Amino acid sequence: MTFLRDDLTQLAAYKSPHPTDSDGEADRVQPVLDGLDTNESPLDLPEDLKADLAEAYCHQISANRYPNGDHQALKQAIVDYALRSGKIAPEIISPENVTLGNGSDELIRSVLMATCLGNHGSILVSEPTFSMYGILANTLGVKVCRLQRQDNFEADTAAAQSAIESLGTADVPPVRAVFMVHPNSPTGNALTQRELDWLKQLSTDVLVVVDEAYFEFSGHTTLSDALSRPNWLVLRTFSKAFRLAAHRVGYGIAHPAIISALEKLRLPYNLPSFSQAAALTALAHSDRLLTQIPTLISERDRLSQVLSEHPYLQVWPSDSNFIYVRLSDRGQAALEVTKQADGLVKMFEQLRASGTLIRHTGGGLRISIGTAAENRRTLANLQQVLGSKP
Amino acid sequence: MTFLRDDLTQLAAYKSPHPTDSDGEADRVQPVLDGLDTNESPLDLPEDLKADLAEAYCHQISANRYPNGDHQALKQAIVDYALRSGKIAPEIISPENVTLGNGSDELIRSVLMATCLGNHGSILVSEPTFSMYGILANTLGVKVCRLQRQDNFEADTAAAQSAIESLGTADVPPVRAVFMVHPNSPTGNALTQRELDWLKQLSTDVLVVVDEAYFEFSGHTTLSDALSRPNWLVLRTFSKAFRLAAHRVGYGIAHPAIISALEKLRLPYNLPSFSQAAALTALAHSDRLLTQIPTLISERDRLSQVLSEHPYLQVWPSDSNFIYVRLSDRGQAALEVTKQADGLVKMFEQLRASGTLIRHTGGGLRISIGTAAENRRTLANLQQVLGSKP
Repeated sequence: MTFLRDDLTQLAAYKSPHPTDSDGEADRVQPVLDGLDTNESPLDLPEDLKADLAEAYCHQISANRYPNGDHQALKQAIVDYALRSGKIAPEIISPENVTLGNGSDELIRSVLMATCLGNHGSILVSEPTFSMYGILANTLGVKVCRLQRQDNFEADTAAAQSAIESLGTADVPPVRAVFMVHPNSPTGNALTQRELDWLKQLSTDVLVVVDEAYFEFSGHTTLSDALSRPNWLVLRTFSKAFRLAAHRVGYGIAHPAIISALEKLRLPYNLPSFSQAAALTALAHSDRLLTQIPTLISERDRLSQVLSEHPYLQVWPSDSNFIYVRLSDRGQAALEVTKQADGLVKMFEQLRASGTLIRHTGGGLRISIGTAAENRRTLANLQQVLGSKP
Repeated sequence: MTFLRDDLTQLAAYKSPHPTDSDGEADRVQPVLDGLDTNESPLDLPEDLKADLAEAYCHQISANRYPNGDHQALKQAIVDYALRSGKIAPEIISPENVTLGNGSDELIRSVLMATCLGNHGSILVSEPTFSMYGILANTLGVKVCRLQRQDNFEADTAAAQSAIESLGTADVPPVRAVFMVHPNSPTGNALTQRELDWLKQLSTDVLVVVDEAYFEFSGHTTLSDALSRPNWLVLRTFSKAFRLAAHRVGYGIAHPAIISALEKLRLPYNLPSFSQAAALTALAHSDRLLTQIPTLISERDRLSQVLSEHPYLQVWPSDSNFIYVRLSDRGQAALEVTKQADGLVKMFEQLRASGTLIRHTGGGLRISIGTAAENRRTLANLQQVLGSKP
C-alpha cells in the first residue's frame, strides 16, 4: 500500500491490557480478577455524584448538540482548583494558562506536534518511564532519545545534558522537549532537587514537560515553574485521583504562548459534553473525592512495608498510588529462573492466574494500590507465587 | 519560543461557532437563537433512551476505570448496522473492517498521519468542502492541493487528474489521499457517477476517502467500494442523523490493512466509556432514531422550494440535512451591496441578530434543517433580511 508511510509497518497498535475476550466481555469484569495494572483509583465516584451527573445528562445536556468547544467553564474550575491546592498567587494564573485534552494522551501528541514535526526536534525521555511518550512519538515519525535512569531511578542528568548538547545534526534534530513524570511511572519516585535544578537550568530552547498525573498522591508539584517560566508545561489528569478514567480528561498548565500553540493543534470538539460535566462535578467535590487519598497512601505504605521485608523482592519507595518491585537474586533462585525477565514473566502470569492483574513493565512489576480487600489478595497471591510467606 | 515549529505562528486555533460568552454561557442557550449552523439533528435522543443511558452510567459503568480500548462490541454493532442499511454481503465485512475515532476528526487526523507525514504525501480537496481536512493538514505541516469545484459543485476531475499527475516533486510530495464528502458540505451535492468513475480509476497509490457523514440523509453510500477496493475508506459519524454530536463518535470502514494502519495511530483510549455506551444504544434503536429522517427531508424540500422561488437567492439542490444558498444579482442589489461576500456577511449578521444562526462558508450560506418551528423562523427571518416575502 504505497499510500501509507513506509515506517508504519514497524509500528504495532497499542495493546489494551484489558482486551475484549471472545464473548465480548472485557477481562476486568471477571469477578475474581483485580485490575491493579493501570493505576486507576480503586474507587468509583460516589453514587450521589453519579446520580447528579445522570440527571444532568437527562435534563441539561443535549446529546444532539456538539460540545462546548472552548472549555471556558472547565478551565476556570481548574484555575480555582490549582489555587486551592498549590501555593500560587491568584494574579499569575487564569484560563489562558490552561488547555484540555482527550486524556493527557492528546496533550502529549499535541506537544510532539508543536515541538518536533517536520524535523524540528527530537524528544528526550529517561527510562523506564511512561511508555506513551515514545509510542506517540513513533506514530508521528519523531525521534526519541532514550536514556537509562540510574539505579535509584533518578534521571542521569549528565548523560541527558550531553545528549542535548550533541544532538542537532541533519540526521537527528535537536532535543526540543524533555518529558519527566513527577512522580515517575512505573518506578514511583518524585523528581529530586538535583533533577529539578537540572531541568530549571536547561536552555529555553527546550520545552520541559512535567507530567504530574499522580500529583494528588505525591503532593509535589512544579506548577509555579509552569506559571513563571517560558518553557515549562505541567500535565495533569482526572483519570487517577479524581476517579474519572472512563471519561478521558487531561489538562495542561503553562505560559499562554505555549497554551496557544497547543490549542491550535487540538481537535476542535475534543471533549464530549458528558466528560466536561464529569470533570466539573469532580472539581466541585474535590475535597470529598480526595479525602480517600490518605487511606490509599497508608495502604500503599503497608503493602510496601510487607513486600520490602520479603527476601525475594526488591521494592522501591513510592510517592504515588503504585509500587514497583523486582526480584532479588534469592527471589530468582526461588523461582528457578536465571534471568530477572523470566522471573517477572512467571510472577506476572501466576499472579494473573490467581486473580491479580498487575503490569510487567520497564524490567519490573508495577502494582497499583487497590481497595484494602484487593491489597490483601495481592499479598496472599504474591506469597503463593513466591512460595514463602511475604 | 524556539522549541515551537516556525509554521505554527501562521495557524489560528479553530474558532467554535458557539463560543462561551463573558457570563460563561454558550451562545446557543440564548432562548431565541436557533442553532442551524453545524448540521446537527434538531432532535435530542428520546427521553427513555437518555434515561436508559443514565441508568447504565449509575450501575454499569465504572467512572474510575479506563474505557474498553479495542471497541469490539461497538465495531460488531457497526457491522450489523452496515448490513442492515446497505446492499452488502455478510461475508465481506467484519469488525476488522472498522475503526473508531473521537469524532471523524480524529480519523481524518490519523489518515493524514498515515499517508502524508514525513513528506510522504499531500492531500487533494475540492473546494468549497469540509474545512477540517485542510485545517488538520496544516496542524501536521501537510501540504494541501486545493482545487475549485465547478459551477454545479461537481469536482473538476480533469484538473484533479492533472494535479495528481504533476505533483511529486521535491517541493510538493505526491497526492496520497483525496478527500470527498458524499454528499458534500457545505454544498449538499452527492457524488455524481462521473465523479465516482473518476475516483474508481485512480491509481491504488492514492487513498480515496469518502466522508459519508450525511449518509443517512442521502441514502447514497460507497461502502461496497470500501469493502472491495484496497485504497478506499468510508468515514461515518454518530453526530448527525444519530443525534450524538455531544458524544463524539465517528467511524471508518475499509480494507483491514488500512484499518490496521489507522488503529496503530489512534490514541489507545480515545473513546470514553459513556460515548461507547451511547453509540451502542443509538445503533440498538437505529430504526426508531432514523424514522425522523423523512420528516427532516420533507422540511428541507419545503424550505428549499420556498427559497428557490425567491428572486434574490440562488439555491442548490441538497441530498443532505442542510441547504446552500448564494445571493442572486437582484439579491445583491436589494441588499445594496456590490459584492456577493458583503451581501452574505450582511445576511449572516442580520439573521443572527434576529435569532437564526447559520454558517457563512465557501462563498455562500449553509442553513441546517431544524424543527418545523425553527424552519418557519428561518423563513420569516430571511424574508425580513431580504426585505421581500420569500
